[in-house]
Amino acid sequence: MTELAAKILSGDSRSLARAATAIENRSAAAESLLKELFPRTGRARVIGITGAPGAGKSTLTDRLVHELRRENKAVGVLAVDPSSPYTGGAFLGDRLRMLSHHADPGVFIRSMATRGHLGGLAATTTDMALLLDAAGKEFVLIETVGVGQDEVEIAKLADATVVVLVPGMGDDVQVIKAGIMEIADVFVINKSDQPGADRLQREILALQSLSTRHDDWVPPIVCTVATEGQGVSETLAAMRSFLDRAGAKDRAVANWGVRLREMLRERLLEQFANIDFQAAAAEVAARRLDPYTITDDWLRQIQH
Amino acid sequence: MTELAAKILSGDSRSLARAATAIENRSAAAESLLKELFPRTGRARVIGITGAPGAGKSTLTDRLVHELRRENKAVGVLAVDPSSPYTGGAFLGDRLRMLSHHADPGVFIRSMATRGHLGGLAATTTDMALLLDAAGKEFVLIETVGVGQDEVEIAKLADATVVVLVPGMGDDVQVIKAGIMEIADVFVINKSDQPGADRLQREILALQSLSTRHDDWVPPIVCTVATEGQGVSETLAAMRSFLDRAGAKDRAVANWGVRLREMLRERLLEQFANIDFQAAAAEVAARRLDPYTITDDWLRQIQH
Repeated sequence: MTELAAKILSGDSRSLARAATAIENRSAAAESLLKELFPRTGRARVIGITGAPGAGKSTLTDRLVHELRRENKAVGVLAVDPSSPYTGGAFLGDRLRMLSHHADPGVFIRSMATRGHLGGLAATTTDMALLLDAAGKEFVLIETVGVGQDEVEIAKLADATVVVLVPGMGDDVQVIKAGIMEIADVFVINKSDQPGADRLQREILALQSLSTRHDDWVPPIVCTVATEGQGVSETLAAMRSFLDRAGAKDRAVANWGVRLREMLRERLLEQFANIDFQAAAAEVAARRLDPYTITDDWLRQIQH
Repeated sequence: MTELAAKILSGDSRSLARAATAIENRSAAAESLLKELFPRTGRARVIGITGAPGAGKSTLTDRLVHELRRENKAVGVLAVDPSSPYTGGAFLGDRLRMLSHHADPGVFIRSMATRGHLGGLAATTTDMALLLDAAGKEFVLIETVGVGQDEVEIAKLADATVVVLVPGMGDDVQVIKAGIMEIADVFVINKSDQPGADRLQREILALQSLSTRHDDWVPPIVCTVATEGQGVSETLAAMRSFLDRAGAKDRAVANWGVRLREMLRERLLEQFANIDFQAAAAEVAARRLDPYTITDDWLRQIQH
């Protein structure tokens, strides 16, 4: 076993931070480290927390961290940042949050920007969760903004997915919500002291009756006011009853099926480094080559 | 030349609809048709129209179609539907819109659900735009909801990208807007009769001063009230001055570079059909195999 791996397994924070950076940079060293650590993973509970912008996910996540710390559980938080590939960088809010837990070695927080495409980010998030698992974190909270398929996909790949909704959103936003309805293992109605909470609850129940879940779990609906700490322990309890249900293992296998597919996809994309896309693009833009024929040629090149 | 290709080039609506369905189904016939049609494409102007949910993109698109029809231009509209892979299906609104232009053979409207992943949808949208181009559509409007990277990516791949904003949106939505700021060739402030339009304009100007565009185009800001038809011809004029600028050709080449990459990615993913991801997932979930080693093995299989 390498020294770095041993230090991570012993829970050393500095080694953990160093490994996290290596994973973000997708270095070869990170991969061999993860191969080494992998057999020692599988104990952490990974929770995806998603929902529309403004639903209060960060506040709820923060409250859940405090609740878990009160139980002396080691916690990791991965905040998947909705900033686009064009702007990049982490939110000021996330940076402040990191500072607020800075003195607590039982909490590890990392903000990850959606700089790459879906495959890249999902793979990095998975690797990061495995790292935190190996480092002894008992809960890993992955917070994503459920506005794009990418973020929804990442939240869905957790052991349990919490969808955070708020009363009084417009029609178009409801449509987005509808997209994330199907992935909820636990619903949270946050800001439930605001008008429209009852109506939202009825809407969720109505949508649930149309659900096409493969298991027979009926996602509970928890009302919270995260800023006041209301409903936080109830959210945690709901998460736990889902994690402890029969069939949790099937979900883990299904998730690995999706992740393996993503990982293979990532690897294949790395082969693209040898292809001169720009030269071909000039030919195609001038209509001297068609894009279908050239793609076929490349495919043959990669395979032989 | 096949009969279908000849009919499409002559602008036959029924053949066009048939080919569009073949493209949506990603059939082999669609590909050989597109290979045939490709040398006859390159005349249509492709416009991406994106923005936050509720910004009024559909109404603006509709008004632009009417304006272009008044000039007797043939128009195609591709509405990229934000419904998730979990729900699927087209919006009722889009279906109604299609009916409203049903009698006009100069307009072809297709609503496309985001059922697949980014690669699939971007490739299908590109193919569909090429088909409409070959069929003699002079303008192809691609309307997407700019909430996910996928939709933003698709809008960005147009010859010109219009970003539609509205006054008085919340903070989190502004963050999403920030993500789509960088891709705007033309800004539209829709519902500009509502409070906050001036402030929004100042915000855009402030963000523009931080812009990192590679060309020296300064995206104009057009104020509209799409429901009243206000500012629609100004939007069209702004689009046209962008399309007619020097450097339009560079953009076309750059876009093809991105598209070719996506197409190759798509093709590689098709190879996955032979891999038993679920069996491997069970081994990985039980920690009998590590995901990194198995991915390496598959990669070698695909390549040999």
